[in-house]
Amino acid sequence: MRDIAAAADLSAANLYHYFDGKNDLLFYCQDRALDRMLAALDAARRDSRSATERLRIVFTAHLQTLLDEIEGATAHLQIDSLPPKLRDAIVKKRDNYERALRRLIADGIKSGELVDMEPAVVARAMLGAMNWTVTWFRPDGPDTAAAVGEVISRFLVRGIAARTPAVKRTLAAVENRG
Amino acid sequence: MRDIAAAADLSAANLYHYFDGKNDLLFYCQDRALDRMLAALDAARRDSRSATERLRIVFTAHLQTLLDEIEGATAHLQIDSLPPKLRDAIVKKRDNYERALRRLIADGIKSGELVDMEPAVVARAMLGAMNWTVTWFRPDGPDTAAAVGEVISRFLVRGIAARTPAVKRTLAAVENRG
Repeated sequence: MRDIAAAADLSAANLYHYFDGKNDLLFYCQDRALDRMLAALDAARRDSRSATERLRIVFTAHLQTLLDEIEGATAHLQIDSLPPKLRDAIVKKRDNYERALRRLIADGIKSGELVDMEPAVVARAMLGAMNWTVTWFRPDGPDTAAAVGEVISRFLVRGIAARTPAVKRTLAAVENRG
Repeated sequence: MRDIAAAADLSAANLYHYFDGKNDLLFYCQDRALDRMLAALDAARRDSRSATERLRIVFTAHLQTLLDEIEGATAHLQIDSLPPKLRDAIVKKRDNYERALRRLIADGIKSGELVDMEPAVVARAMLGAMNWTVTWFRPDGPDTAAAVGEVISRFLVRGIAARTPAVKRTLAAVENRG
């Protein structure tokens, strides 16, 4: 608690005023991080642009939440230390998030914008690449959170984006030449 | 120890005959898993085929080690529970592996086969996507280890493979038509 209070520029006593101890605070952090990620997913779903653009919105928000925010850094840690009732609530919200990401992928495959790969496996590969950042990212390291987020988002979108648009553009250029 | 003995079809007494307790066994498992991964990386480096083919060899071996083998499943867990000397040896070997993967990526960027993305960040995104599988993969789940490995390897290679070859093939096909 003391470390968190210091990071949040609050006295430990002040922090205890708002939270019923460590579990309550941990739950609040994880819950808030997931709310931000879910909000980004909803926004992406309502976005009328391409499937790849939607994925990019989700990845950017996910990485920003994990790397930029105090609550994000704890979002994927220590969940097992929560009492069962709080833990179940977090697990349920995580499952909702993962399901929504899968749907986004499945829709993109259906529209032909994404290549046909099993959405459940690809979604978890994406989540793994993003969540793993909490094990190695250091705010005082060589890259900013924004730079790391940009590289990983681009890499993950490329992994599933159909290549047709680039091929189409090239063909169009060839035809214009002829 | 009892769980591991059961999984390996050995009696716990038999297992203790070979290993000086849990730490010794955990170290052996992690060390062996990393040796397999490093061997695959060396083999890939000596392979004369394309950069994408080299990456595919590395990813397939990494995922196979994590998902198929008893020692692999423990390879990224509980490292903090090892005594400092054993832990340092594992961390050093992991760092070697990560460095070799970065070099493979940097070489592919130089040759133009891979797109220019920061090798350190992309390598960790790849490792995250793969290592995260130990948190969710179940041998009795809907997908085999081989199927999961195939999807994730393809996804990760696509993430950084330059698109030029596909465009080139399309252009060649167009020219042949004309």
